[in-house]
Amino acid sequence: METMGNLRRTHYCGTLRARDAGTQMTVAGSIAKCRDKGGVIFADLRDTTGILQLIFDDSTDRAVFEKASGLKSEYVVIAAGTLREREAKTDKIPTGEVELFVTELRVLSGAQTTPFEVRDGINVNDQLRLKYRYLDLRRPSMHEPIVVRSKIAKVVRDYYDEQHFVEIETPMLIKSTPEGARDYLVPSRVQPGHFYALPQSPQLYKQILMLSGFDRYYQIVRCFRDEDLRADRQPEFTQIDMEMSFVTEDDVMAMNEGLVKRVFREVLGVDVETPFRRMPYSEAMARYGSDKPDTRFGLELQDVTDVLRESGFAVFKSAVEAGGSVRLINAKGLAGALTRKEIDKLVDVAKTYGAKGLAYTRLTADSVTSSFEKFLSEEEKAALHKAAGAETGDVLLVVADAKNSTVFAALGALRLAVANKCGLIDPDKFNFLWVTDFPFFEYSEEEGRWMAMHHPFTMPRAEDLDKVESDPGSVRALAYDMVLNGCELGGGSIRINDPAVQDRMLKALGFSEERARESFGFLMDAYQYGAPPHGGMAFGFDRMVMLMLKRDSIRDVIAFPKVQNAGEPMSGCPETVEEKQLRELSIAYAPIETEE
Amino acid sequence: METMGNLRRTHYCGTLRARDAGTQMTVAGSIAKCRDKGGVIFADLRDTTGILQLIFDDSTDRAVFEKASGLKSEYVVIAAGTLREREAKTDKIPTGEVELFVTELRVLSGAQTTPFEVRDGINVNDQLRLKYRYLDLRRPSMHEPIVVRSKIAKVVRDYYDEQHFVEIETPMLIKSTPEGARDYLVPSRVQPGHFYALPQSPQLYKQILMLSGFDRYYQIVRCFRDEDLRADRQPEFTQIDMEMSFVTEDDVMAMNEGLVKRVFREVLGVDVETPFRRMPYSEAMARYGSDKPDTRFGLELQDVTDVLRESGFAVFKSAVEAGGSVRLINAKGLAGALTRKEIDKLVDVAKTYGAKGLAYTRLTADSVTSSFEKFLSEEEKAALHKAAGAETGDVLLVVADAKNSTVFAALGALRLAVANKCGLIDPDKFNFLWVTDFPFFEYSEEEGRWMAMHHPFTMPRAEDLDKVESDPGSVRALAYDMVLNGCELGGGSIRINDPAVQDRMLKALGFSEERARESFGFLMDAYQYGAPPHGGMAFGFDRMVMLMLKRDSIRDVIAFPKVQNAGEPMSGCPETVEEKQLRELSIAYAPIETEE
Repeated sequence: METMGNLRRTHYCGTLRARDAGTQMTVAGSIAKCRDKGGVIFADLRDTTGILQLIFDDSTDRAVFEKASGLKSEYVVIAAGTLREREAKTDKIPTGEVELFVTELRVLSGAQTTPFEVRDGINVNDQLRLKYRYLDLRRPSMHEPIVVRSKIAKVVRDYYDEQHFVEIETPMLIKSTPEGARDYLVPSRVQPGHFYALPQSPQLYKQILMLSGFDRYYQIVRCFRDEDLRADRQPEFTQIDMEMSFVTEDDVMAMNEGLVKRVFREVLGVDVETPFRRMPYSEAMARYGSDKPDTRFGLELQDVTDVLRESGFAVFKSAVEAGGSVRLINAKGLAGALTRKEIDKLVDVAKTYGAKGLAYTRLTADSVTSSFEKFLSEEEKAALHKAAGAETGDVLLVVADAKNSTVFAALGALRLAVANKCGLIDPDKFNFLWVTDFPFFEYSEEEGRWMAMHHPFTMPRAEDLDKVESDPGSVRALAYDMVLNGCELGGGSIRINDPAVQDRMLKALGFSEERARESFGFLMDAYQYGAPPHGGMAFGFDRMVMLMLKRDSIRDVIAFPKVQNAGEPMSGCPETVEEKQLRELSIAYAPIETEE
Repeated sequence: METMGNLRRTHYCGTLRARDAGTQMTVAGSIAKCRDKGGVIFADLRDTTGILQLIFDDSTDRAVFEKASGLKSEYVVIAAGTLREREAKTDKIPTGEVELFVTELRVLSGAQTTPFEVRDGINVNDQLRLKYRYLDLRRPSMHEPIVVRSKIAKVVRDYYDEQHFVEIETPMLIKSTPEGARDYLVPSRVQPGHFYALPQSPQLYKQILMLSGFDRYYQIVRCFRDEDLRADRQPEFTQIDMEMSFVTEDDVMAMNEGLVKRVFREVLGVDVETPFRRMPYSEAMARYGSDKPDTRFGLELQDVTDVLRESGFAVFKSAVEAGGSVRLINAKGLAGALTRKEIDKLVDVAKTYGAKGLAYTRLTADSVTSSFEKFLSEEEKAALHKAAGAETGDVLLVVADAKNSTVFAALGALRLAVANKCGLIDPDKFNFLWVTDFPFFEYSEEEGRWMAMHHPFTMPRAEDLDKVESDPGSVRALAYDMVLNGCELGGGSIRINDPAVQDRMLKALGFSEERARESFGFLMDAYQYGAPPHGGMAFGFDRMVMLMLKRDSIRDVIAFPKVQNAGEPMSGCPETVEEKQLRELSIAYAPIETEE
């Protein structure tokens, strides 16, 4: 191995163009590819910005040529020379107009043969890629998202900074709180038998910061949830977290529309129109069956309960009688795409989301096939078709259930499935909207009580306050979610800054005074000493980056993600530790079997 | 409580000056003080930028005046009116030239009487302040450091961003490694009996990022060490962490001198001269008895071993014979300040740092008093005084020990004690220097083996490589610490990028091949596939902010610090958790007593 000597990089590879021809320069990086074609050596040099072709031919100094002839993939070099225009230009790579005629070459590191090729378009299994993450991250398609992520973070910080926000770091070792998801715990050595929790969000601390007079706070911060992994969930994930005082929900929304506009403009060159459309939760559910509707396509839900209330079809009738509803999607003009076989697949989707089945009517030029219309009278049939606006070429997809939430979940999922199947989604569109007026309470069958849909510190709408005890289900919260293309990009609320209202809401949530004090005592105390009106929101940063880069998995935008078993294949964590370490923490391994 | 209605802040309090007089504006914040003086109400309004006087007098609308007369400390208000010049100006506060004549006032929150006054210059015990941290943080002297900290972070990010660094987030749930301080552990639920560690630093990951081709990485990142607390240590602390490829130590040092220059210029308006002075470790120890010398004053150490080698004073003689040394500080002209009583205190300092005692000679106009010169011959005495440059008015402080490290530690501490006692330190100076050429190895008596002074991935100097096995103590590392006013601001090194050298160093550190693989296997593997030369450093961010703001404790620059028992008094963490939570993690509380 050689040292760099006096050579230092003067240029990055990916930025070089024909206009730079003639420039003396030094570049550095890894050999992506190297081949000898009739006595001319072409070596692709890769750095963090892109690829540049190095060239060595019969006019190259012999010693340099000799060294170049020993180059192999992933060798690390630094090379000086003169940039020149290529004879055979290519537009396959951005630097395809130029090449570097190398006059000095130093090989800084050799490399073993890699377990897979370091280039895009290869087919390697995920486990191998994750084990050798450092090789996978060298591939341009994996490298770029991490670089762009950094750029997005920078724009976010610039924006909030200009808006007088102060970046404040909140603690990572905090108290475990009973509400919400499962906490990761950290045993305390100094206080045996006591535990810290890793934060699921800085929620309590950001409220405390408003009570500390900081007025406008933000942080890009790691959060933790010990839940089972899904495609878009990680045990540790990153939030853009913000909070501001002396505001209403309109102010918070406008501030963050500004953020999104700025980020999309600066990073993607995309103009996002503001203000975003707003839609109350109840409307989102009724029209899209979802509190995060994808509005890039139609296929809206229609309520046909009244039409089918007296129907002879028992499934519909019993659903309506039990207080539920019958709703449908008219898949307009899609009878061709939605064959019987495809509809069968949709039945499975509906069942996955809890529906007992999926009723359908398929209207082709030849015939009308239906799974349920034989049970309807001619009048009902006509009324249904009229209500649905059914015409030849349409498919009606109907779900009935005693629970509206099931009808919405199933039809919301069907809507997406049909749109995906039939190519109704324009992948270049970025459709933003706010969903507002969420219910404050959500009834949990499992817990047998009313729970806070957002969190217990969310301010209820003033005009709904008198229904907190009498009709909790109808109390709306000053909460808002920002939705992009059917994904929740972020959400937040105005917080309760009146201790009397907070007491009342905690009571309605079934907290005894003792349990409330134990869980949130210090926060409740804090609100006694003067509390400005305040609110904020948090964005899922990983998800934001993923959506902006149109990637399918948040793994692609995290440098070192965890996998299904919450482990990280490269380092092999989590691992067993030395007995001594556990002893110092006054804990012991206690397998569940022997405990119960 | 009222709502804000249509009022929204248009101006921050602290920024208003006489030039703004006549402006219609709306301000918002907390009442810092309120008094009625002969029918005129003066209310100090505090927001995150400072204080502004609100005024209500007989020309104020009666309803507004009525409301104002009910104001109490810490009430939260929003107020609109016209800014005007005060009749009685004051320069006690920056806005002392102006006041707001209020035409509209809304009281947004009342407040209970606070447990201590929310203003500077009060005497409250620490526990109470920490329990009510949100009140303490409202006090301007506690509020400001958090705001300035945010500004420093912003400048750091701007600088690295301009230098093409990419901000990359490394994992918080990682593998526990055997070297270094004690890890915080996090039990895995999904993999019972397995544990994550919280990172002591992102060291391994930033090296991996260089191997992933990211080239220039930085992060402002939380780190964790489960060690006992001291004044400038916290269980969780923040580092500015950076790493770069294709560089030597000179490049890393120049890059970070640029950072410091920029931060001091933009945040403090102070010009820092670069490049910084550099001093090899051996020189720093010999002249200052410390690897982080405070060079704002003299009092350098002098080696008088040769002079006293044959001394009749057994303490000196035996120290020299055992391979140690005799060294002194000449406290020039300080005989007046360093009375016998003060010297007795210095003896205690020397003992605290492991010295068996402190010998001294005090030369006043009247007499020479000495604890040891009676044991010396006249020639030795004369030679000693000559070597030390001793004159009337001086005090010689002499330490001898068989271990040089003890001599250095004691004299290094004495140097600081004398300088502090005698006011030799200019508090307005910022003296930066680099300490370089650290020993690679440090012998641990406790472990009975050579340990890495920095960490095992530090590159040894090429010219010292042949001494790794034969004379480890003399091998120097390509490591560097940035020192400011006697504090280590940061440190780093060039890393080993040659797997053969890495193997050799791990062997010299006593790692068996198996243990090396178990601990660092994935990192060692990674270096097989092409590794650019790279290095970096990390700054203690909390400490940097503390030194810039001339605060005595890092607690003052952390929003929610931990205290001595690693707890946080406000929230009361760590806490016991529900048995169910531990069961899910397959761990149990196991008090140490019953275990042993």
